[in-house]
Amino acid sequence: MYLSGEIHTDWRERIERGAAESGLDVEFGSPVTDHAASDSVGATILGQQDRSFWNDNLGAGVNAIRTRTLLERADVVVVRFGEQYRQWNAAFDAGYAAALGKPLVVLHPEGHDHALKEVDRAALAVAREPEQVVDILRYVLHGLLPAPLTSRP
Amino acid sequence: MYLSGEIHTDWRERIERGAAESGLDVEFGSPVTDHAASDSVGATILGQQDRSFWNDNLGAGVNAIRTRTLLERADVVVVRFGEQYRQWNAAFDAGYAAALGKPLVVLHPEGHDHALKEVDRAALAVAREPEQVVDILRYVLHGLLPAPLTSRP
Amino acid sequence: MYLSGEIHTDWRERIERGAAESGLDVEFGSPVTDHAASDSVGATILGQQDRSFWNDNLGAGVNAIRTRTLLERADVVVVRFGEQYRQWNAAFDAGYAAALGKPLVVLHPEGHDHALKEVDRAALAVAREPEQVVDILRYVLHGLLPAPLTSRP
Amino acid sequence: MYLSGEIHTDWRERIERGAAESGLDVEFGSPVTDHAASDSVGATILGQQDRSFWNDNLGAGVNAIRTRTLLERADVVVVRFGEQYRQWNAAFDAGYAAALGKPLVVLHPEGHDHALKEVDRAALAVAREPEQVVDILRYVLHGLLPAPLTSRP
Amino acid sequence: MYLSGEIHTDWRERIERGAAESGLDVEFGSPVTDHAASDSVGATILGQQDRSFWNDNLGAGVNAIRTRTLLERADVVVVRFGEQYRQWNAAFDAGYAAALGKPLVVLHPEGHDHALKEVDRAALAVAREPEQVVDILRYVLHGLLPAPLTSRP
Amino acid sequence: MYLSGEIHTDWRERIERGAAESGLDVEFGSPVTDHAASDSVGATILGQQDRSFWNDNLGAGVNAIRTRTLLERADVVVVRFGEQYRQWNAAFDAGYAAALGKPLVVLHPEGHDHALKEVDRAALAVAREPEQVVDILRYVLHGLLPAPLTSRP
Amino acid sequence: MYLSGEIHTDWRERIERGAAESGLDVEFGSPVTDHAASDSVGATILGQQDRSFWNDNLGAGVNAIRTRTLLERADVVVVRFGEQYRQWNAAFDAGYAAALGKPLVVLHPEGHDHALKEVDRAALAVAREPEQVVDILRYVLHGLLPAPLTSRP
Amino acid sequence: MYLSGEIHTDWRERIERGAAESGLDVEFGSPVTDHAASDSVGATILGQQDRSFWNDNLGAGVNAIRTRTLLERADVVVVRFGEQYRQWNAAFDAGYAAALGKPLVVLHPEGHDHALKEVDRAALAVAREPEQVVDILRYVLHGLLPAPLTSRP
Repeated sequence: MYLSGEIHTDWRERIERGAAESGLDVEFGSPVTDHAASDSVGATILGQQDRSFWNDNLGAGVNAIRTRTLLERADVVVVRFGEQYRQWNAAFDAGYAAALGKPLVVLHPEGHDHALKEVDRAALAVAREPEQVVDILRYVLHGLLPAPLTSRP
Repeated sequence: MYLSGEIHTDWRERIERGAAESGLDVEFGSPVTDHAASDSVGATILGQQDRSFWNDNLGAGVNAIRTRTLLERADVVVVRFGEQYRQWNAAFDAGYAAALGKPLVVLHPEGHDHALKEVDRAALAVAREPEQVVDILRYVLHGLLPAPLTSRP
Repeated sequence: MYLSGEIHTDWRERIERGAAESGLDVEFGSPVTDHAASDSVGATILGQQDRSFWNDNLGAGVNAIRTRTLLERADVVVVRFGEQYRQWNAAFDAGYAAALGKPLVVLHPEGHDHALKEVDRAALAVAREPEQVVDILRYVLHGLLPAPLTSRP
Repeated sequence: MYLSGEIHTDWRERIERGAAESGLDVEFGSPVTDHAASDSVGATILGQQDRSFWNDNLGAGVNAIRTRTLLERADVVVVRFGEQYRQWNAAFDAGYAAALGKPLVVLHPEGHDHALKEVDRAALAVAREPEQVVDILRYVLHGLLPAPLTSRP
Repeated sequence: MYLSGEIHTDWRERIERGAAESGLDVEFGSPVTDHAASDSVGATILGQQDRSFWNDNLGAGVNAIRTRTLLERADVVVVRFGEQYRQWNAAFDAGYAAALGKPLVVLHPEGHDHALKEVDRAALAVAREPEQVVDILRYVLHGLLPAPLTSRP
Repeated sequence: MYLSGEIHTDWRERIERGAAESGLDVEFGSPVTDHAASDSVGATILGQQDRSFWNDNLGAGVNAIRTRTLLERADVVVVRFGEQYRQWNAAFDAGYAAALGKPLVVLHPEGHDHALKEVDRAALAVAREPEQVVDILRYVLHGLLPAPLTSRP
Repeated sequence: MYLSGEIHTDWRERIERGAAESGLDVEFGSPVTDHAASDSVGATILGQQDRSFWNDNLGAGVNAIRTRTLLERADVVVVRFGEQYRQWNAAFDAGYAAALGKPLVVLHPEGHDHALKEVDRAALAVAREPEQVVDILRYVLHGLLPAPLTSRP
Repeated sequence: MYLSGEIHTDWRERIERGAAESGLDVEFGSPVTDHAASDSVGATILGQQDRSFWNDNLGAGVNAIRTRTLLERADVVVVRFGEQYRQWNAAFDAGYAAALGKPLVVLHPEGHDHALKEVDRAALAVAREPEQVVDILRYVLHGLLPAPLTSRP
């Protein structure tokens, strides 16, 4: 299971903790979530460039070695859109996963519903909270329902 | 091996028991066969909707995360059509498996022969009883024939 | 556009007539809808068999030459489920189209909602009446909306 | 050539006009760019729902029939990110096109460089102005260079 | 439609003539059926070799440029096995077509039934006479049945 | 590694023994090589039919569950053509493997060179003796050459 | 037919002229063969960079829009290696075409035989002179042999 | 990870040693790097031919069994171009990997920048020294940056 998108809150930890507490046998992958490392990796390894465009280009290439491999190997792809930032790489990953036919779960607050309607339409589930993703995993792996929740897509 | 279709008789257990008794090393997958859980999972995890159409839609999405993953991983797909109900999802799975080029085994009573002719034509074997599926597995894995049966396709 | 499924009402004619009246440039394909011809084609061309199972098998093979070719060439696949019969080949075609990634439109009365939830979930639109399919085509081809309808998915 | 993304400026017209003035034989496709029609199409054709989430879901489905077909048929995909809005569907289309291996051209102002670095990395060209896309087309089709420009990626 | 296999009888002409007489709009492709040209083409164009193995190798390469292209473009592949010769290239083409998911029609005398059982199983129709292939085409294209035949698969 | 084709000599044993003696870590798959079991499996498990054609059809279906799965999983496919019989299923497997892009090794006596030229052309190696296949394996896995042989392709 | 590789001799013209003289109905594609335009296109359209590495990178991106599209559409790919230069893009195109399963014809002088052995092995024909490619086309399209040549692969 | 290309320096050892020293869990594959064995394998196993062209052809076939299998299995492909020789097989492998969508890392001295621009453009990273590849691996697997380097792409 590949966890793409927002890197500024603890949603990945909440999913991984929930899965562990439920005894679910799932392997999680994610992009490098150290923002500074992710931004500087290209220039650091391959050489500092004169324009930031090319530093970004080098870094995006190195990161893509990781993200595409994990995404293509994943059985399920979860993409989280947070409250802030443009998060175009999250939407890019969602499109990439959709074109590969990967089961897609999207996680975002209700306020993004209209702006994310195309992404949501391509998903097999739209959740609000990481715990719902854990519930989905528990059901998908073991057929077990959680106690009813009140949150809604 | 993915066991799709009818969830109201013990055909899956008969195949799994037969495989175990014959010492066959096969891993079986199936949809969630708890009918009530399967019907309510969408609304329970993702939120109750005002129309049953959308509750079904949410549930079908969550179930598809499981079924498509198992179906795409399977080496062989068995689809069982029982005596009752419309079982359109069984035929949908058969079509999905056929398009993926998965070897397909169909299991149904003789009374469905005419109505299932397109599905049967896409299959590599049409059986009547779960024990025949065990016989096929034993042959396919170890080249061993059963004692002759009298049942017919 | 491939029109699969029920062959006992005039839904194909209603879509084709509506498309023609709207001046839409669409080519329609369908299975052979002459029920008697479709059932007897295998035995007629390839030889009468002793068991009806094999006559059906021969006929399903010949029909599949037509249906798979049209289905794989189609840009959009519409599958209609009528009030009667089991229509497993319709659900099989829907699964086949879904696995190929074809945009799928499903057409059926509200009474089938629960039984068809897996098929509906795999579709990009669920309609009740053939005229809605014409509306979808007009929008998809020319971006034009119809006057609002009152029917609901 | 499929022109995805921003629908609030005249960038598509500038590309189409430039291509026509250069006598380039290119067929352009785009999503429905009438914003109101695009937002309301689902509810209008398939029925008004109680929650806006489901109206959006219906509309996104109908629009996807158009956009996926055009995108999968295109030889080249251009995605434009404008100054405003989140434009997640643009990034989704870019990811979808990238996974299909379509040659991708991205068009956006310099201010988006860092936020779009993953998308830019997946592209074969990053341009600032629609006229550069026309220049690319003229070169790609006829091997002709424009007079040198001063704008930079 | 690609007509593979035996090149020593007039079966291709019988199919093409029958299709023309029925007014069927079908384009036929075939390997080069001039046996001498087909055998010598490699050495003639690319240079005579010291061993016949390499002359055959060169010729098979040039012929494959034609046959694979036609086979991959065909909507339907017909493979004929005659009374004589080993015709391994016919069986090779049948396997190639089957792996590509092409609808396959096999044409051979009853005496080959047991030896060709794997090939027949992969086909959507097994016919004895070229005229049956014309009947299949007429039905597949126009839904028309022939007068009943007495030959059997 | 899948070993397809002739089942009347000990060529599979010679390859497996040679690989074992060289300490090569290879897993071998093959069709069911018990000729009587392979011929009767369909009728025995799925029911005796009135015509041998249908008994063969049932058997070929069950065998295909095994052979296609092994063939699609194999990293390398070896196909052996013996001195006798028509062996069309061997050529069919070779075509199937070629269309899947599997590395193909063909094994046959020199007398078949001309008749097998299309199959040989699709192969990455043409060998005469099973021991050459062991030599290829040893080289491919460990980069080790055998002592020079005198046999020729 | 896509003509990749060397751009400093008239081999493309010789093939196109020969095809025209033989009345062959073939459409030829090629990279932009104006060396100066091809090298400067990136910087000219997308902006001059501070390092030649990035100018080359921009140019290679724009050229790839043309070359990949033509290569993926081609039925046959011809790659010519001339006497001079490293011509790595020619070998890259050959590898790309081979992975796509395109029939590949390689054209080069005898002196390159050893260095190009991997590329030649992936080809369906290895020719020395452009006229041999015309001969191949004439045979592949019309089954006609040329007068015997004396040149050898 | 597949390490293709130049076989005359110790770049593979430097990557493997660096990966081991960093405790990276990576499995490396490569072509047979014993030049003499690689050149003679075809003739040695399959028989000496009269022309060196065919000896090369036999050897390239046997080597391709290894290289294609490793390349298709690899998650990342590294291709190294050294100072000497034409190394067309390295460029061929790069094109093959690009067409398969494998993440590609290219390793070459600055002097090759212009000649390799098409290959570099298809890569996700262009490095100068094997140690940079180790840095990329360490980052991709564990998100760890090295101390800043001064070398540049």
